[in-house]
Amino acid sequence: MARARRNADSVSLQPVAGNGLLDRRLLLKSGMVFAGAMSTGIGGSIASAGAEPLAVESWSKSIGVPPPPYATPSPRAQIARIVSDTSRPGTMQARTPHHRLDGMITPAGLHFVVARAGAPDIDPDKHKLLIHGMVKQPLIFTLNDLMRYPMESHIRFLECGGNSAPMWSKTPIQANVQQLHGLLSCSEWTGVRLSTLLQEAGVDPKATWMIAEGADGITMQRSIPIAKAMDDAMIVFYQNGEPIMPWNGYPMRLLLPGYEGNMNVKWLRRLKLTDTPVMAINESRQYTLLLDSGKAWRFYYPQEVKSFITRPSPGMQMSSPGYYEISGVSYSGHGRISKVEVSADGGKSWGLAAMQGPVLPKALTRFRMPWNWSGQPVVLQSRATDEGGNVQPTRYQLIAERGEPRGTPPVGGFPMEHVNCISSWAVDAKGAVSHVYA
Amino acid sequence: MARARRNADSVSLQPVAGNGLLDRRLLLKSGMVFAGAMSTGIGGSIASAGAEPLAVESWSKSIGVPPPPYATPSPRAQIARIVSDTSRPGTMQARTPHHRLDGMITPAGLHFVVARAGAPDIDPDKHKLLIHGMVKQPLIFTLNDLMRYPMESHIRFLECGGNSAPMWSKTPIQANVQQLHGLLSCSEWTGVRLSTLLQEAGVDPKATWMIAEGADGITMQRSIPIAKAMDDAMIVFYQNGEPIMPWNGYPMRLLLPGYEGNMNVKWLRRLKLTDTPVMAINESRQYTLLLDSGKAWRFYYPQEVKSFITRPSPGMQMSSPGYYEISGVSYSGHGRISKVEVSADGGKSWGLAAMQGPVLPKALTRFRMPWNWSGQPVVLQSRATDEGGNVQPTRYQLIAERGEPRGTPPVGGFPMEHVNCISSWAVDAKGAVSHVYA
Repeated sequence: MARARRNADSVSLQPVAGNGLLDRRLLLKSGMVFAGAMSTGIGGSIASAGAEPLAVESWSKSIGVPPPPYATPSPRAQIARIVSDTSRPGTMQARTPHHRLDGMITPAGLHFVVARAGAPDIDPDKHKLLIHGMVKQPLIFTLNDLMRYPMESHIRFLECGGNSAPMWSKTPIQANVQQLHGLLSCSEWTGVRLSTLLQEAGVDPKATWMIAEGADGITMQRSIPIAKAMDDAMIVFYQNGEPIMPWNGYPMRLLLPGYEGNMNVKWLRRLKLTDTPVMAINESRQYTLLLDSGKAWRFYYPQEVKSFITRPSPGMQMSSPGYYEISGVSYSGHGRISKVEVSADGGKSWGLAAMQGPVLPKALTRFRMPWNWSGQPVVLQSRATDEGGNVQPTRYQLIAERGEPRGTPPVGGFPMEHVNCISSWAVDAKGAVSHVYA
Repeated sequence: MARARRNADSVSLQPVAGNGLLDRRLLLKSGMVFAGAMSTGIGGSIASAGAEPLAVESWSKSIGVPPPPYATPSPRAQIARIVSDTSRPGTMQARTPHHRLDGMITPAGLHFVVARAGAPDIDPDKHKLLIHGMVKQPLIFTLNDLMRYPMESHIRFLECGGNSAPMWSKTPIQANVQQLHGLLSCSEWTGVRLSTLLQEAGVDPKATWMIAEGADGITMQRSIPIAKAMDDAMIVFYQNGEPIMPWNGYPMRLLLPGYEGNMNVKWLRRLKLTDTPVMAINESRQYTLLLDSGKAWRFYYPQEVKSFITRPSPGMQMSSPGYYEISGVSYSGHGRISKVEVSADGGKSWGLAAMQGPVLPKALTRFRMPWNWSGQPVVLQSRATDEGGNVQPTRYQLIAERGEPRGTPPVGGFPMEHVNCISSWAVDAKGAVSHVYA
């Protein structure tokens, strides 16, 4: 079969940055023949169909599998969370496989989990939510009570404050995107605006904090500033349309859009209005950032502007030189992403990526950048900017601000929380992709 | 414990239609105390928390369950598809449980399925897509080839042309929303714009049809007008971020936003450009609507403007009079929903519902309407209008247009396809919800 070779050179016509980055809008208008562009080098496989019809494979000659009550992906798709050692209590974790995903939504089955004591098996008919402390009238709600309130749905990301901690290693850890950045997910959450419930309870004007407590085995607690509680905070019951997964807080969790994951208390049972924070270990130590100066960032909540490339990414193998689409995710705890830039020369030159709409506040925004890979070694990076003008820093800028790496990841308590720096993926001449510092 | 009773009458202050429908915007601004409004009648359960602290339940005293590689919902959430008899080949079906969902996204595990021969177990490394027929250059693509193309992500609904066929029954079938309207789902789909591939193959200007063929055991075929193929049609690989479920087309399917489900050919293996339709059974009989006049609607594709209330809905039991939120879904194969109206008096008066943004074209739009139920019998309805000005008809209008019901649902081939009429849910004085014609 002859390879399609028409128009193969047109891919170099509209560069937006060095090493083959292209203008997507012009490219799509150009009538460029991708089939040709993919087979200019070694290994391009798109073929003119001289040998039609296709072979009829075995699966087309038999009756297939009936649908089960709840579907899960084909084992052939090789899609799963990486789950930490669960043989004993401690920090049970599961990481989202971003290298195998595309789009904005994270399937609930693949949502990241950090659970110090695992998922409690809560009976939704017995579970109650108490709002008390500095309020005029303490209130107790059942799930059925709350389901009668006015609801809202919003697509919002959640990220563990400790996500990307491996970036703090002195040498680049050779691991894939799931292992490096997998404590990040994005879902459509549905529930009740918290301010509605707090107004009913009647918050004392002297209350400055709200302590949220979960019903898990460690009764997880975090202190939330009252301003956030009255802003866009929600109590949510649905994740991507269905009841929340047991590991993500079934039957209800707190949602604090843009704030570090563990503050979004799962299995929520109690909200206490106070005038002082609870000083739980998660705020007094785990999520306090101690700087070289001896000063510390404490009560530092938002997950700052960030992005990373998911395809190609470490562990992948490019099949040949030619045309590819670079794809990744961007997000900011401060609002909408305003732009994402991509570099193929380690940050020397940058081109504007296309952002997939709808671009929503505090949600993942997928970006895409056309790329004609010449077959030479390159370093790929992405850099996000949010509507507040915040720009994703380089790793060196982050270290300059916080001090040199100390300790060994993934131990907490060091300045490796809230790591939002640029990631760098090297592609070598053979097409192998690896993690580098650049 | 004393019940909260403050401000309970305020819920009647802003009616927008008969039998207790309220203005949501004014309601949320009013500072209305829902806890009070829910306990004016029998059974309201929100309690002032005289007995704090809460009892500590057993699940808070032990270590919970570690996260698995792929999560599924708590059995306590009682969430599953209804699956048809799968003991023999034929039409295997699975229905989405809309009565247990909220939001816009349908979880992939709960997406509806109609599969005449079940899901083929396709090896993604061997599967190929052929584009041929009236083209300049036939092309064969592997999955890896296609993954290098420019991708797009769009949230779009899919609905079986035969969804809601039970509405054609001469008497209202007593079944829940899942059984009545469960062949409808909405996902974020990611893949390649079909026009990009067709332009590469070079479509003969004389070609008017594209025949799409699946790789399942019946090699499902449908004819698609070339204009749709060149418009918003896609070949998709991802469903809500992850690889498409086996029963929804893994590793790739055709997506024709807004067109009847079976045209969105799953397990796509072949696209043949022609100047005549293939006249497969699905277009010559199954999805042809024979009218009383002897004339027939053939090649009638769009799923027209539609909505239904999911909560409350048949089979549910209202716990007490007082405040509730009515919630449901609306959609149109012609574009965006422009408004949804709700009636609590069987269509005599209508109030404008709130629509949850983002309101996307050819996607589910969740609507919500505050309601103060007096405890008297009512009939709830919803009526959607799309941006093209199409208004969802009553059941009587649909029958007047197409003729009286013939045959016994769910046998196909009668005018019970493309049923988009208004649904009516009766609430009796005891709070029981049932399906009625009104």
